[in-house]
Amino acid sequence: MIKIVLVRHGQSEYNEQNRFTGWTDVDLTERGKEEARKAGAILRQNKFVFDIACTSVLKRAIRTLWIMQDEMGLLWIPTDKTWRLNERHYGALQGLNKEETARKYGEEQVHLWRRSVSVRPPALDKSDPRYEGTDPKYKAIADRVPVTENLDDTEERVLAYWREKVEPSLHENRRVLLVAHGNTIRALVRYLDDIPGDGIATLNIPTGTPLVYELDDDLKPIRHYYLEEDERKVHSDAEAAAGAPDVRSE
Amino acid sequence: MIKIVLVRHGQSEYNEQNRFTGWTDVDLTERGKEEARKAGAILRQNKFVFDIACTSVLKRAIRTLWIMQDEMGLLWIPTDKTWRLNERHYGALQGLNKEETARKYGEEQVHLWRRSVSVRPPALDKSDPRYEGTDPKYKAIADRVPVTENLDDTEERVLAYWREKVEPSLHENRRVLLVAHGNTIRALVRYLDDIPGDGIATLNIPTGTPLVYELDDDLKPIRHYYLEEDERKVHSDAEAAAGAPDVRSE
Repeated sequence: MIKIVLVRHGQSEYNEQNRFTGWTDVDLTERGKEEARKAGAILRQNKFVFDIACTSVLKRAIRTLWIMQDEMGLLWIPTDKTWRLNERHYGALQGLNKEETARKYGEEQVHLWRRSVSVRPPALDKSDPRYEGTDPKYKAIADRVPVTENLDDTEERVLAYWREKVEPSLHENRRVLLVAHGNTIRALVRYLDDIPGDGIATLNIPTGTPLVYELDDDLKPIRHYYLEEDERKVHSDAEAAAGAPDVRSE
Repeated sequence: MIKIVLVRHGQSEYNEQNRFTGWTDVDLTERGKEEARKAGAILRQNKFVFDIACTSVLKRAIRTLWIMQDEMGLLWIPTDKTWRLNERHYGALQGLNKEETARKYGEEQVHLWRRSVSVRPPALDKSDPRYEGTDPKYKAIADRVPVTENLDDTEERVLAYWREKVEPSLHENRRVLLVAHGNTIRALVRYLDDIPGDGIATLNIPTGTPLVYELDDDLKPIRHYYLEEDERKVHSDAEAAAGAPDVRSE
């Protein structure tokens, strides 16, 4: 049984401020750090262990991974950071408040920008201070840093990484932890579950919640599930610790 | 001008307790974290930037690096973690209190174990719970995990890594940050500065203090220096901020 665990970073400063983020390199909020800690803890409690981790070059994803590694006692595992797992580039919308943008352009337009797989937000001008082409972290791709993306664009680069790095690791039975962003994980889910057309539009990926995919030898999904705190289990563990009688023996 | 910066991790729990550490995977103390933060800050203040980082698979070194990356805003740089940069293996002394060990075996014997380049401490038995051969982080070298090392043994593996990974990076003009341990850095210094025999015995590497090596095109050292807080500079910056008059204009 081959498994991969996908995790969307915890709440970021722009999530909290309801702004479009994209490649803007904002940090986690305190709540985001706590979500990351919980994601690591639930994986540890469920005996998940990893041989390798991959993430984007954006600090909200890297910090989520670091906090998870700390929680799992896995600081030492090799980690690959790639721009290909960055969030979808949101073009000239990056940094804008979602509500203000909806008032300016209309709800419908904003919904299209956010959810359509083919519509691109307005491009970022290369003279715009928000343009990432001069950021040292993109030096190797300075001539092709995106200025806007639709979900298809994002999926293309995510899948290039998947085929080049993730698939070979999975075939070598390495247990992979992938910590990334809402739209890069949506792109992977669309690919893995073979969701046609706009079928992905309504799918939302919750922050800090491990999404486990079990795959067959051809890396086709057998099933997937979110690893969430099981209230009943927590409850029954607490009872056991308190010495509550085993009902079956009564 | 090729530069590499070497940093010994901040104070660890065993440093504080005066115990032999070696491959024991203890964490940083609060003081150690603060040392790491200062090391990152002084590099940032002196405009050091890095393209790549390398460290050991021990958490006191990895955490030191993470804190430094955070302080420098360089979370995204590629990081290579290798057992070859681990601290010298201290054999059966690992975990023992240095003072008690000196009372038991004599000061002279302990000094030899600590400082001689050729004497090895007593080997760790493979049935000893402290033996690291079953630790998943050493899976790839399970058949050759050391049970004790002298400084020559440590140097051999450190230099294997240096030649395989560090030298090619430096030749490609990548700016390398290497965060490791007292004896792995001593081994590198001995090699770089071509210190013969036991000449390295008295050299102590301070924790959390960036050691800058400037190298020529053949990677031979031109000079090296520690990057330490310049009290005068801090003073004059504070005066400038307070609007103190420029002496030259009086």
